[in-house]
Amino acid sequence: MMILITYDIGTTSEGGVKRLQKVAKKCESYGQRVQNSVFECVLDYSQFTILKHELVQLIDIDNDSLRFYHLGKNYKNKVEHIGVKEALDVEDFLIF
Amino acid sequence: MMILITYDIGTTSEGGVKRLQKVAKKCESYGQRVQNSVFECVLDYSQFTILKHELVQLIDIDNDSLRFYHLGKNYKNKVEHIGVKEALDVEDFLIF
Repeated sequence: MMILITYDIGTTSEGGVKRLQKVAKKCESYGQRVQNSVFECVLDYSQFTILKHELVQLIDIDNDSLRFYHLGKNYKNKVEHIGVKEALDVEDFLIF
Repeated sequence: MMILITYDIGTTSEGGVKRLQKVAKKCESYGQRVQNSVFECVLDYSQFTILKHELVQLIDIDNDSLRFYHLGKNYKNKVEHIGVKEALDVEDFLIF
């Protein structure tokens, strides 16, 4: 299933920049960055549960905002992109 | 139906800051800001078509990225939020 993760990290609060880097790095290890603070992750439910737990440990709930959108299995026709940096299809097989 | 709009505007490019303000203002007129560049809009298809057209006119496709996620009608159980600034339920009746 596709999970969309969006976040706003309070970078002006103490340790905010570090949290931003850690959250981005964590999301990158599970999926694909499609915009600065927007990630698309194809995960099963247990992977999602682990990722969510790990992210909650990284953020400051008084300064940061984390949102998860469950797009389900048939997500490809639910996403439209216009403009720069079209996201690679997360499930496409990349051959270098 | 719920449409999630996320955008990255190339603010370092010429006119970028102005475009960012215009895009945010346009999205605010159709829905609710839940994070800095993330909006939730409850729209019918014709409203969505108009909004998309208006946003495409505002962005610079060589520097900006605009994404639309179609969450459908039963979106409430598809969204999870953790942290600061819980979004008001866009369809809640606000009485002042």
